[in-house]
Amino acid sequence: MNSKFEELKDYLAEIHDLYTVASVLSWDQQTYMPIAGVESRAMQMATLIKHAHELFVSDKTGQLLDDAKAEISDKDYDSLEVSLVRVTRRKYNRLIKIPTKLVVELTKATSLGDIVWRKARETSDFSIFQPHLEKILDLTIQKAEALGYEDRIYDALLYEFEPEMKTSQVEKLFNELKTGLIPIVKAISNKLDIIDDSIFDQEFDEDKQWNFGIEVIKNLGFDFKRGRQDCSAHPFTTGFSTDDVRITTHIYKDQFKSALFSSIHEAGHAMYAQGLDKKFNRTILRNGASLGVHESQSRLWENIIGRNKNFWIFWLPHLKKFFPTQLEEVDVNTFYKAINKVEPSLIRIEADEITYNLHIFLRFEIENLMLEHKIKVRDLPELWNSKMKEYLGIFPENDAKGILQDIHWSHGMIGYFPTYSLGNMLSVLFYNHAVKDIPAIPDEIKEGNFEPLLNWMREKIHKEGAKYTPGELVKRVTGEPIQTEPFLTYIKKKYSDIYDL
Amino acid sequence: MNSKFEELKDYLAEIHDLYTVASVLSWDQQTYMPIAGVESRAMQMATLIKHAHELFVSDKTGQLLDDAKAEISDKDYDSLEVSLVRVTRRKYNRLIKIPTKLVVELTKATSLGDIVWRKARETSDFSIFQPHLEKILDLTIQKAEALGYEDRIYDALLYEFEPEMKTSQVEKLFNELKTGLIPIVKAISNKLDIIDDSIFDQEFDEDKQWNFGIEVIKNLGFDFKRGRQDCSAHPFTTGFSTDDVRITTHIYKDQFKSALFSSIHEAGHAMYAQGLDKKFNRTILRNGASLGVHESQSRLWENIIGRNKNFWIFWLPHLKKFFPTQLEEVDVNTFYKAINKVEPSLIRIEADEITYNLHIFLRFEIENLMLEHKIKVRDLPELWNSKMKEYLGIFPENDAKGILQDIHWSHGMIGYFPTYSLGNMLSVLFYNHAVKDIPAIPDEIKEGNFEPLLNWMREKIHKEGAKYTPGELVKRVTGEPIQTEPFLTYIKKKYSDIYDL
Repeated sequence: MNSKFEELKDYLAEIHDLYTVASVLSWDQQTYMPIAGVESRAMQMATLIKHAHELFVSDKTGQLLDDAKAEISDKDYDSLEVSLVRVTRRKYNRLIKIPTKLVVELTKATSLGDIVWRKARETSDFSIFQPHLEKILDLTIQKAEALGYEDRIYDALLYEFEPEMKTSQVEKLFNELKTGLIPIVKAISNKLDIIDDSIFDQEFDEDKQWNFGIEVIKNLGFDFKRGRQDCSAHPFTTGFSTDDVRITTHIYKDQFKSALFSSIHEAGHAMYAQGLDKKFNRTILRNGASLGVHESQSRLWENIIGRNKNFWIFWLPHLKKFFPTQLEEVDVNTFYKAINKVEPSLIRIEADEITYNLHIFLRFEIENLMLEHKIKVRDLPELWNSKMKEYLGIFPENDAKGILQDIHWSHGMIGYFPTYSLGNMLSVLFYNHAVKDIPAIPDEIKEGNFEPLLNWMREKIHKEGAKYTPGELVKRVTGEPIQTEPFLTYIKKKYSDIYDL
Repeated sequence: MNSKFEELKDYLAEIHDLYTVASVLSWDQQTYMPIAGVESRAMQMATLIKHAHELFVSDKTGQLLDDAKAEISDKDYDSLEVSLVRVTRRKYNRLIKIPTKLVVELTKATSLGDIVWRKARETSDFSIFQPHLEKILDLTIQKAEALGYEDRIYDALLYEFEPEMKTSQVEKLFNELKTGLIPIVKAISNKLDIIDDSIFDQEFDEDKQWNFGIEVIKNLGFDFKRGRQDCSAHPFTTGFSTDDVRITTHIYKDQFKSALFSSIHEAGHAMYAQGLDKKFNRTILRNGASLGVHESQSRLWENIIGRNKNFWIFWLPHLKKFFPTQLEEVDVNTFYKAINKVEPSLIRIEADEITYNLHIFLRFEIENLMLEHKIKVRDLPELWNSKMKEYLGIFPENDAKGILQDIHWSHGMIGYFPTYSLGNMLSVLFYNHAVKDIPAIPDEIKEGNFEPLLNWMREKIHKEGAKYTPGELVKRVTGEPIQTEPFLTYIKKKYSDIYDL
């Protein structure tokens, strides 16, 4: 049958293909592309995105959406058909507001921005990145204005990553988090030295780190037949279908925790992407509900599981086989405390579960200032450093460890950072509900069996793809809206134990 | 100025981008893509090629070509402008004959064919590849019929790889080659054992092989800032611009010659691609004149240089540092003879310079039979094996080492194989002219200085890109048409020395 819905689906599938091809280009750029390839890559990317965008925002899409909607009016809200039309329509109505020319300019600017950021970070020289960031910010503001907003310009951008979430809501949640977290940070700051993590002052062979990480994420449930891991400057996850999902990590001899927890974090994203309903391939529904929900999965596996004592009851003996010299004398309590040591630190992705959020508050505030023209790009390093001092009491010795540490802005991802802390909150919310349904989960983890937990996530979250807004999904899964309380309770309990507060 | 020519150039640049993106996808598929990714990759590829093809064969292209041609009528035949219009027009007139539907079907069939071929080769099971090859052959015949031909169906396909060359011309050249080569093979066959290549019966560490190969091709002139090397089942070269040219190789512990000569071969292609005029980026002129001319470069570096005694006078001492145990007692004469041992062998890409051509004759004959419906796909393994017996006197023990050894047919590259032997002939023709112009070249090679030779190739061949047909280029560079005599003379001299004929 050649229904209008099928026609729409086929048409959108090709557009989806073009966007996933862009993801292949981006993966290649961040993993293997020779440095001189950047210019031709920027052109390839711009051409690809231009064609995909033009096809998507065409009148044809609008017409097909109307026709298909009429045709499937008897189907359920939850059906693939109605969901595809609904979610596509939401994106369509948004994107038709952005001129193709602006989309192409942003693609070119961010494709070059990525490479320049890498060089700038390597040499810790913000000045070479500055003009690129200025350009990207300028284009992003144009984009936000084109999209329109009622209250705050930040709203226009946040929507792309966290549909229907408002900046004011984020501020409210973040204020609650601050109020809850700061007393804990203070209490701990008097006891910083009671935890000895000197085992991590040793060197750990890179190949062995790599192999151990692979073993762990395989066991958690990352399917290497449908995915792979490589190295990149900034770890990330990307996927082109449920059958080709790729993660990256980075390995340093003198930073054992870095590669392992990066791998677990990205594997969390990747298991979400591998767990989507296969029927969603080549559709807009082959996505997480939002980036916040995506982070709930990565942060769940990285923190609630990866920094859990039961997890290490199972894994520490294996790890000792990889590093007998370094870890000979370590017991699981010492190890558990060492990986959970709270310490104000410069690099967000290396931060502990508590101070991590302070990094996010800082980014969120700076992004708002940038978008509202309250700070100039050239003054960002100074602002960054002073805010680091204010929030974390430390001061980066250079911009590579400061303003330049993250890739996101170079990719035009402004308005994205809050999703990390939203993810933290959601991870606890979801985990608590999983344990309520399957009380054996903590014991299973102790045995190295992560299947019950993964299956719960698959069933409740993964398989739904992008059918629901994050608000809808959280409500369906937990019966509640997103909230700070479960996360704060989790933090209080865990760190009261560790620091004997 | 917004001239018609500029409009054409910009329009074609985007189409070129889309095709180079397809090359990125293909590179990824052959190097890193997880096996389960094949289905979504086939869809991505089909969508991409469909859009590129539709844009290219549109009336708009025809109109722009007409308008631009009128506008640049005062420019020279050799100018970028006139060349771009001329070469594009040639391709346009060809491609508008192929229905887009057929292009898409071929893309899907070959994208799947690639993966199935890999599996079939791994398990040496022709039967799983057979239906795919049948499909590819059927579509290829449809394509040839759509393109049309006067004399032989093979002509229609050969043109894509070797513009303006006729099947009858190839047959004439190949008959001359046979007549010249068979007495030499016969003479050598009585003396096969006088060359001792038992040094290669040893194991050579893979990492060291890799590192030595890198050192060699760097020295020859492959620019790693604008390229890279990876591993793949079948070595190949691809490029997305003059600044991003990638080669692959494969390494086996017990086959020392394989990786090294593959690397040098592909580096030969890659130096051609890196040596094109940068102005040709994002145009159809960023290409070799033909695949035969491309092979002239790869075979030049692999054979005339890489299997040359002077080359090893320089490189053997370095190689000994990598493999002191294996090569301790070897002198340069023994080594030189060992790498040039003539031996009928099963695998084309491992073959010596003489018997290599017999593999090509065999493929060329089989392809003609396939296209003219004189043989069924299911009977190919048997035909292959009997022809191997006839030409080389040996019999493959399985299909992996027989009909399944090469990737080309799985990619729909039928009509391509003759270019290898054309390349052999051209490599000698070009090399002789280079030495005539710069007599010091052989001595420079002895010193490890390949720049004079590379520069000559750059100046005479590389920088011209695809401006000229192979016939035009060969005439411009050598003053002569392609011919067998210089190649036969080279072979006679070299092997008379080695085998004391």
